[in-house]
Amino acid sequence: MSAAEIGVIGLGTMGAMLALNIADNGFAVAVHNRTAARIPEFMEKAGDLARRITGHAELEDFVKGLASPRNIILMVPAGDAVDAQIEQLRPLLDVDDMVIDAGNANFHDSERRAKASEEAGVPFLGIGVSGGAEGARFGPSIMGGGTPEAWDRVAHILKAISAKYEGQPCATYMGTGGAGHFVKTVHNGIEYADMQLIAEAYGVMRDGMGMDAAACGAVFDRWNKGLLQSYLIEISGKVSAATDPETGNPMLDMILDRAGQKGTGRWTVIESQMLGAPVPVIEAAVVARNMSAQRDLRLAGAKAFGPTGGAMADGTLSLDDLEQALIAGKVLCYAQGFELLIKARAEYDWDLPMAEIAKVWREGCIIRSAMLNDMASALTDAPEQNLALAPYFADVLRKNVAGLRKVAVVAMGAGQPVPALAAALNYFDTLTSARTTANMLQAQRDYFGAHSFERTDKDGSHHGPWLDQHLQG
Amino acid sequence: MSAAEIGVIGLGTMGAMLALNIADNGFAVAVHNRTAARIPEFMEKAGDLARRITGHAELEDFVKGLASPRNIILMVPAGDAVDAQIEQLRPLLDVDDMVIDAGNANFHDSERRAKASEEAGVPFLGIGVSGGAEGARFGPSIMGGGTPEAWDRVAHILKAISAKYEGQPCATYMGTGGAGHFVKTVHNGIEYADMQLIAEAYGVMRDGMGMDAAACGAVFDRWNKGLLQSYLIEISGKVSAATDPETGNPMLDMILDRAGQKGTGRWTVIESQMLGAPVPVIEAAVVARNMSAQRDLRLAGAKAFGPTGGAMADGTLSLDDLEQALIAGKVLCYAQGFELLIKARAEYDWDLPMAEIAKVWREGCIIRSAMLNDMASALTDAPEQNLALAPYFADVLRKNVAGLRKVAVVAMGAGQPVPALAAALNYFDTLTSARTTANMLQAQRDYFGAHSFERTDKDGSHHGPWLDQHLQG
Repeated sequence: MSAAEIGVIGLGTMGAMLALNIADNGFAVAVHNRTAARIPEFMEKAGDLARRITGHAELEDFVKGLASPRNIILMVPAGDAVDAQIEQLRPLLDVDDMVIDAGNANFHDSERRAKASEEAGVPFLGIGVSGGAEGARFGPSIMGGGTPEAWDRVAHILKAISAKYEGQPCATYMGTGGAGHFVKTVHNGIEYADMQLIAEAYGVMRDGMGMDAAACGAVFDRWNKGLLQSYLIEISGKVSAATDPETGNPMLDMILDRAGQKGTGRWTVIESQMLGAPVPVIEAAVVARNMSAQRDLRLAGAKAFGPTGGAMADGTLSLDDLEQALIAGKVLCYAQGFELLIKARAEYDWDLPMAEIAKVWREGCIIRSAMLNDMASALTDAPEQNLALAPYFADVLRKNVAGLRKVAVVAMGAGQPVPALAAALNYFDTLTSARTTANMLQAQRDYFGAHSFERTDKDGSHHGPWLDQHLQG
Repeated sequence: MSAAEIGVIGLGTMGAMLALNIADNGFAVAVHNRTAARIPEFMEKAGDLARRITGHAELEDFVKGLASPRNIILMVPAGDAVDAQIEQLRPLLDVDDMVIDAGNANFHDSERRAKASEEAGVPFLGIGVSGGAEGARFGPSIMGGGTPEAWDRVAHILKAISAKYEGQPCATYMGTGGAGHFVKTVHNGIEYADMQLIAEAYGVMRDGMGMDAAACGAVFDRWNKGLLQSYLIEISGKVSAATDPETGNPMLDMILDRAGQKGTGRWTVIESQMLGAPVPVIEAAVVARNMSAQRDLRLAGAKAFGPTGGAMADGTLSLDDLEQALIAGKVLCYAQGFELLIKARAEYDWDLPMAEIAKVWREGCIIRSAMLNDMASALTDAPEQNLALAPYFADVLRKNVAGLRKVAVVAMGAGQPVPALAAALNYFDTLTSARTTANMLQAQRDYFGAHSFERTDKDGSHHGPWLDQHLQG
């Protein structure tokens, strides 16, 4: 076999699937894994595709098996493992060989690695890959960060293996340094929010309307034919319909309500805080996961306060109200996510292609949905506009905020937690407030800290009449 | 004049007030300021207290004017300025001279500085000082971090200048390294939340009930005699009652609704994310400040969607409902803040004295309130218990959550933003949920990422029946 066009280090689920995807698209690929025993297992699983794959137990052999200049994808656990792998690898490479980090890197790490690579005069690419195992195998969404030259060198491979939306590859160059991983982080934050909104709608059906899992599933299936059409709604229908092979009960009913997380939702919140970009629906989603994990505390809480109810009187809410609530909640959480990207664009001096971000998310990734195509159109018209104010989505909101309001109010009245829906509604009501109550905050801050305030009737910074009185002492 | 017992570098508002406070308590104090012109101004303002203060234009003279071993308080802007000042100062000092950073440091910086000092074998103390200018002058709340020896060396001075609660000084050692500044950060996060809750109650009165500023002020004054008694409620009454000397209008009505922030609320949210400790009310408060700053966007939103209303029908809400809402919201946001401290205690291996934290906040600081004394009692009984479940506060919540629920529901129904109150209610309803909807999240995560889930009927990690089907491809 001749030298491979590209290499993959790390044969965990994602790395293995990505290597198969690359081979499936006609590229010769070399693979390596730190635990060598996994390599023959993988080769066997590769079946017919093994003819385009060479496995190397030794890193040196892996490097020698690649055509120059080499392109090497790392799919190892994010963090120190990436640095360790680069450190081990780099001495074996030529100056124009390129390392491509395809893991779930924190974008600050990608910025640092890009800078170190630039100083060493070697190419580096950080790519965010979304779509889970299935996406990695059959077409993920790929968000690239690094120099344009680095991207161009492997763009043909990344585009070939990526998902396609009406023939257009979902693999896009986002900007320098950590731009690709930043966009991926925001993707994951939105994913948390979208999932939480769906879970809250499920909760209203389950606890408020007394519907069983199969009935909820049928509703998700129906919603998936409308404005909400998306991968997450689709799989919500599927998991709701599934039966537990062991007990014969609905699978959903047998799953413990303790959610895990890998931290990318948290990163989104942290970056939003650094940038002063409000993402309250994503924050609510991360809080909900953390609180789900505090099961002992919740059980103690339930015991101390008794059942909080959740049941809503017949007819107080309709499934149409709930669909409206999800539509409005979704628009508002995406508006927040894109606002965060707009703020990052300015702060990090990235030329983030706003419409292209919506486009790259249309297929392959977890948050793929019909609505993203409309978002791409809106962002093409006005890349830096808040999506909630884009004409198309403003109209969607005009038609659906009433449902969001009704669901939030009825659910909260009944004791059903809907933190993400409530955060979406309060975001909307604040976003449309010509006058908030922050004048009170400014008065307090001036009173206790002499922080000064602006006035409604003239420019400049001012103090209240209280200052002289109480600081004399 | 003989050598001073302590020195203060930095004569901004806080540093100047602190120096006066020290002198006022009978200690000889040396002062220095980078811009030397401020020193004579300060000395003149010191009046009679100047007899215990020596001003030094040169840093060398300042150092020489201090008794050995020296204790030097830095009150300079947090961040690089502190490092620069330490770097300039340290070569002039003896090995047992101590630098005390009293600024609003990020606790990570204090951890770093404490470590560097330890390695250099020199003492270092990081103290959080709360209470604004007035507190610094007449008695702040002081939260110390560093070695116990470093604290003990100046504890007599810090206790003397601190606020007193029934004779007990509000100056407490919190733990090693950055513990003092961490506690101060959480204080500030709670401060953000407390202020936002009050602002939302004000908004309900102003926009929902059509009350003018003076009427709102009278309500705050009345609430300040009950369970809500606190500095922030007190000053809310005062600023509501104040008249603008220029226009004769209520001062509050002339203040622009664009709130500033210095970033410590943000830090609290970031640390809560790092620790997985939910602080949704604090998050809502930071979001509200950020959105208040986006005034152009809000004006565009108001224009696009028309007035959102806010007016509530007569009699739908009473002022008692609103008081209940604030009481419950306050308990819940403090419960979150103390949970964050409990998580930090474990993570950073600090022996944070939980009840003492509530005690040190009872006087001097911005969030001082009657309720903190009850919190100190509850935390004395059970330092690691969520405050919402402590018998006394569980009872408070049983009596007041109904008002919180009513206010949140009526306000959100009317289009009045109440993000912090809503977050508090959803926190309560989740905290008391024996079964959340996180089973849906876990099903989705297992479907798209094979992340596995726990079952309700047995231990271990499991997958749904869907995995085999869709990953075969």
